[in-house]
Amino acid sequence: MELLKETLKSISSPDEVAKEEAKKRLDNLAKPIGSLGQLEEIVIKMAGITGNIYNKIDKKNIVVMCADNGVVEEGVSACPQVFTMILTENMTKGFTGVSVLSKMTNTDLTIVDIGLKEDIENPKVLNKKINCGTKNFTKGPSMTYDEAVKAIEVGIEVGDNLFKEGYDILGTGELGIGNTTTSAAVLSAFTGFGPEITSGKGAGLTEEQYESKKNAINQGLRLNKPNKKDPIDVISKVGGFDIAGMCGVFLSAAKNRKPIVIDGFISSAAALSAVKFNPLVKEYIFPSHLSKEPGAIYMMKELGLKPMLNLEMRLGEGSGCPLAFQVMDAALCIMDEMVTFEEASINSKVLVDIR
Amino acid sequence: MELLKETLKSISSPDEVAKEEAKKRLDNLAKPIGSLGQLEEIVIKMAGITGNIYNKIDKKNIVVMCADNGVVEEGVSACPQVFTMILTENMTKGFTGVSVLSKMTNTDLTIVDIGLKEDIENPKVLNKKINCGTKNFTKGPSMTYDEAVKAIEVGIEVGDNLFKEGYDILGTGELGIGNTTTSAAVLSAFTGFGPEITSGKGAGLTEEQYESKKNAINQGLRLNKPNKKDPIDVISKVGGFDIAGMCGVFLSAAKNRKPIVIDGFISSAAALSAVKFNPLVKEYIFPSHLSKEPGAIYMMKELGLKPMLNLEMRLGEGSGCPLAFQVMDAALCIMDEMVTFEEASINSKVLVDIR
Repeated sequence: MELLKETLKSISSPDEVAKEEAKKRLDNLAKPIGSLGQLEEIVIKMAGITGNIYNKIDKKNIVVMCADNGVVEEGVSACPQVFTMILTENMTKGFTGVSVLSKMTNTDLTIVDIGLKEDIENPKVLNKKINCGTKNFTKGPSMTYDEAVKAIEVGIEVGDNLFKEGYDILGTGELGIGNTTTSAAVLSAFTGFGPEITSGKGAGLTEEQYESKKNAINQGLRLNKPNKKDPIDVISKVGGFDIAGMCGVFLSAAKNRKPIVIDGFISSAAALSAVKFNPLVKEYIFPSHLSKEPGAIYMMKELGLKPMLNLEMRLGEGSGCPLAFQVMDAALCIMDEMVTFEEASINSKVLVDIR
Repeated sequence: MELLKETLKSISSPDEVAKEEAKKRLDNLAKPIGSLGQLEEIVIKMAGITGNIYNKIDKKNIVVMCADNGVVEEGVSACPQVFTMILTENMTKGFTGVSVLSKMTNTDLTIVDIGLKEDIENPKVLNKKINCGTKNFTKGPSMTYDEAVKAIEVGIEVGDNLFKEGYDILGTGELGIGNTTTSAAVLSAFTGFGPEITSGKGAGLTEEQYESKKNAINQGLRLNKPNKKDPIDVISKVGGFDIAGMCGVFLSAAKNRKPIVIDGFISSAAALSAVKFNPLVKEYIFPSHLSKEPGAIYMMKELGLKPMLNLEMRLGEGSGCPLAFQVMDAALCIMDEMVTFEEASINSKVLVDIR
């Protein structure tokens, strides 16, 4: 609990002076004010995070939290539970979507076993197992309160270490059969929306399986009564170790004043949990794409964030993060390379201000 | 008229066999079927265009059509007309948004004077001037029918030459004060929607200026009665030389079986005009972002295309194209680098198919 407490205490407001300075320069660049839309908002937000108006995201890492979910017993997933393990193995071999996109964008991956059901013998997987999967939340809490704290602290520790190693930005990803169910349950717990709003057909459910999923979420919420004012309580009762771990990574980014990117629906649930600890955490978070998962739009509304991309992706793994890194690179490049009207005039004798 | 006729005659269907083969491989990759959403659709569309299932877009060029619009006399723009010229000069010096983003993505720019009011003495600008700006369409057609044909043919010629030089993909951009007005008028002409739907406040109009803009569009449509079945007639009556030129570039891409990217609202008007010549042209066109211009969403609906990015940009110039190139690069990289379940099994003894 100490690391979590210390982390929460260290989270502070963005640097408003740097944001103001960044905005001032953007408004002076040779273009109509605000015409680069969210690219400009990215530049301003980055200034608030680091305190500098020029920023780089050269060293990038995506943290992939891998864990199993007890609620799969309820028939909420189209895939058997063993796939979490297989996908984790595949990821270490570079066979997954996020592996390919990370390589393309020169991004490193940190693969963490935070709660796989079985042990994995692979030096490329960081063993931070809290327990061998969560419990079935239709029969009791997913995990104990203490386990939730520990899992969040694993995320904080992983994040802190990566920032110490010099990473400029982190992405968040996960592997865990059943985790659209836990994420929808977390969203329901925080918002009060029912599972018909927060959940969808995941990786290809039948109507019947979708009914089971909604029933499981309703049952989990009714039985465990998560307290929406306490994100630890929500995560422990209807969440998963992956969500807890990513929540910790978001908190670490805010503490270290570094940017961090949401992938899809599941990492949004973790981001939302982190923001429920302290709304300031949002100032360090960048969304990437709008997941095809139907609850994603409510997640973004609750977070108050606008995704950059809309590609109807629903792979997870962190696969949206490299795409967001590219857009952020473009935004930072505009700030680095575009000149103001005054600078253009000096160099070119184009003396008219076209704002 | 010969080049346009020959071009229209040469436009053919995408390669359905290659699309089918690309889809088959995508469905076998180590991920749930369709889970990469529009990234997969990009791969399939590219296969249809080139006939190959693996594609590269290494050599990239954005064609920027620069032209003045007579309708600015009606007070439809927040900027004086001379800005078209100044922005064109700035672009040759690398001072504009698209210059910076193109450099970042290793994209070349082709800057074309297709109808600037004044002559520009700059070796970096291709002189293809049709006339010194268009006429005010509230008093008669923007240009003659013959001028519209010639301007479209300039676009075809520029496109054809770039593809001959070995470019894999083109983007479309423009500079022209008053061209959100002409684009909205073109959209109104094709769809029947009034200017209260198709037009917005451009680069920062007052309420009064916005009223003038809507009145000008209504007047232009009433007076000139563009025939929505003839895109040449629509462009000549209420369009501009920039729209005509970009329309030609879209037609060239379709003829040459090469991909081409839409930037924002104005290049969408050109894309829509090209698609009105032949709906098959759409099969060669990729949208980039959803412009903040309110009519943009109707443009995309009419085109039947879904933008990849939503960044509330409204700069124009072609600035959205480099961002789309990055997303397309990611899509093509998925196809190149991801392995199928079978390939993964051979290399790793992971024998379970996780689809």
